[in-house]
Amino acid sequence: MRPVHGGNLAWAAATAGCSPDAILDFSASISPLGPPKSAISAISAHLGSLRAYPDPDYRELTTVLCQVHQLSPEWILPGNGSAELLTWAGWDLAKLAAAILVTPAFGDYYRALKAFDAKIIKCPLDLESGDRSQKTGVRENNSSFILQPSGFSLFESGLLINNPHNPTGKLWQRETILPYLEQFALVVVDEAFMDFLPPDREQSLIPMVQKYPNLVILRSLTKFYSLPGLRVGYAIAHPDRLQRWKQRRDPWCVNTLAAAAATAVVQDLEFQKSSWEWLPPTREQLFQGLSQIPGLHPFESAANFLLVESAQPTQELQQKLLQQHQILIRDCLSFPELGDRYFRVAVRSNTENERLLKALWQLNTMS
Amino acid sequence: MRPVHGGNLAWAAATAGCSPDAILDFSASISPLGPPKSAISAISAHLGSLRAYPDPDYRELTTVLCQVHQLSPEWILPGNGSAELLTWAGWDLAKLAAAILVTPAFGDYYRALKAFDAKIIKCPLDLESGDRSQKTGVRENNSSFILQPSGFSLFESGLLINNPHNPTGKLWQRETILPYLEQFALVVVDEAFMDFLPPDREQSLIPMVQKYPNLVILRSLTKFYSLPGLRVGYAIAHPDRLQRWKQRRDPWCVNTLAAAAATAVVQDLEFQKSSWEWLPPTREQLFQGLSQIPGLHPFESAANFLLVESAQPTQELQQKLLQQHQILIRDCLSFPELGDRYFRVAVRSNTENERLLKALWQLNTMS
Repeated sequence: MRPVHGGNLAWAAATAGCSPDAILDFSASISPLGPPKSAISAISAHLGSLRAYPDPDYRELTTVLCQVHQLSPEWILPGNGSAELLTWAGWDLAKLAAAILVTPAFGDYYRALKAFDAKIIKCPLDLESGDRSQKTGVRENNSSFILQPSGFSLFESGLLINNPHNPTGKLWQRETILPYLEQFALVVVDEAFMDFLPPDREQSLIPMVQKYPNLVILRSLTKFYSLPGLRVGYAIAHPDRLQRWKQRRDPWCVNTLAAAAATAVVQDLEFQKSSWEWLPPTREQLFQGLSQIPGLHPFESAANFLLVESAQPTQELQQKLLQQHQILIRDCLSFPELGDRYFRVAVRSNTENERLLKALWQLNTMS
Repeated sequence: MRPVHGGNLAWAAATAGCSPDAILDFSASISPLGPPKSAISAISAHLGSLRAYPDPDYRELTTVLCQVHQLSPEWILPGNGSAELLTWAGWDLAKLAAAILVTPAFGDYYRALKAFDAKIIKCPLDLESGDRSQKTGVRENNSSFILQPSGFSLFESGLLINNPHNPTGKLWQRETILPYLEQFALVVVDEAFMDFLPPDREQSLIPMVQKYPNLVILRSLTKFYSLPGLRVGYAIAHPDRLQRWKQRRDPWCVNTLAAAAATAVVQDLEFQKSSWEWLPPTREQLFQGLSQIPGLHPFESAANFLLVESAQPTQELQQKLLQQHQILIRDCLSFPELGDRYFRVAVRSNTENERLLKALWQLNTMS
């Protein structure tokens, strides 16, 4: 019953003994600002379109994404959440000699790689030696993060990484990842949280995709636009690869309402701007609050969540937070490198963050 | 650009030189009665739930489906349309020595089988010798429809069939399919159109699933409830098989709004009843109308569509219907066994069917 992903409110509600609506959810890294009104309007406007099949080419959505990313349509493939596209990336990675996974890694990466029997080689980030007061949370000098285990060739292997990294929040500079495109047969970069960086700070590899046929970028509309229930994301990669993916999956992967909402939100500049204004000071305030609680050590983050090291076992802490405060945090048991001494929290509104801090303060000072 | 499936309104509109909304679509086999109001209400009521991930176990939907089919939850797996579930059935079929496909077959079956390099062996229905005035459209004596090519064993092979059959509309009696469950390693029955049969006439194999771990049934909410834009279907099969499927695909395949609408419609007895009352007389009237047009020979059907043999090449006919009448019919080019002398039309409302008949009469008598 214990969930392996964040956001499992049915489980949390059963544990807390309340309705799922009553749970204050810090476990799913979803922006508290959304969904944008533009998403809801687009959905309402398309209720009459449900009796037609979706356009298998999703031309309206793709056209808008083309404008945003300055690419032609054949480089973009919408999917049923980036998780669906990850399945097909997992297939491509499984065909290689090995798939190098930067760990701790999002649990669904293992699912997608194991589905097709990929040979997984873990490349751990060094969290222990990171100076937590530094900007990145992980030590500055590990920008060259790839281990080189003997017995396999990088040229025949693939790399799966996310940027910003989940759960640490670390942002790699574009220049740090670029050399791997010369070394690996395939590089899959999950940029599910990249939208949270404003245009002058983001480090997306999308501008490089036309130069590297071995580059796949996965983008999600789930986190930034608070639409996890909608299931929509997209892949950016060489047209030949995306054509192969299309032949594997069914022709109408994205629901009409999801496609309509996605088309609206990627053009919603006002929502984007307010998110970029909201996040940095709010995250900083939560970071400071967490730092002051005895036994807790947050990592600095470029995304909308914070990884926190905890002196108290987090499974216990999670239980108490649910039962006493109806607050759900993300334990890190699904990240085997982290285990029971780390948890992750989303950045929410100041009021909600204060509620979390108060509860954590109480639980960490009372024992 | 020519679509391989029905319902590609973007293509049709471009050919007809009008907006997609102006097309009268007989190509997609969708009921004209829906979507049920209960679906739209459920979607509207769940717009506020988009900021949470869907329950990965889809408990609400599964609970309702359990009641409908008298099964416990582990036997049911919701999917992103039955097309998504077909992908995983295709994987299972590809692991066997061969996959026997009853042809003509829905184009997406080939996609799902080829995706995983299944060895496809076609088992053609004999359309030519069928007495078209008979109830089934295909000759009565081919209830034992399986050829037995030499060089492979049925016990190591799988069978993929749909019932009622698309595009002929033929309904096999349960007893006709049952023996194959003893002979094949895996039998996948796509029952996408079975809902159109009232309870006293339906021939679903769902009641047999607990007896046969080698049986997979795919069900769709697309056709009967007119919700092709929503993407929701479900598989019924042995829990071990469904667990394996869950490990392959991502955890949140069905969008929250789709799950909510599905939960509502499968309980909408009023909509179901009115559909069962509407279809038989309306289909019969369309059948009679088509029979009277020179050069056209419809096949009798248990589903909400009719296959029609045409003396005139159907690609030409399709073009003229679009350009002169903004009516879209389904050519059968994606069914290689049928080619250019067959087309398929959905049963729509009497008024719409009359519009089709008038246009077809004109085009078949003017040349």
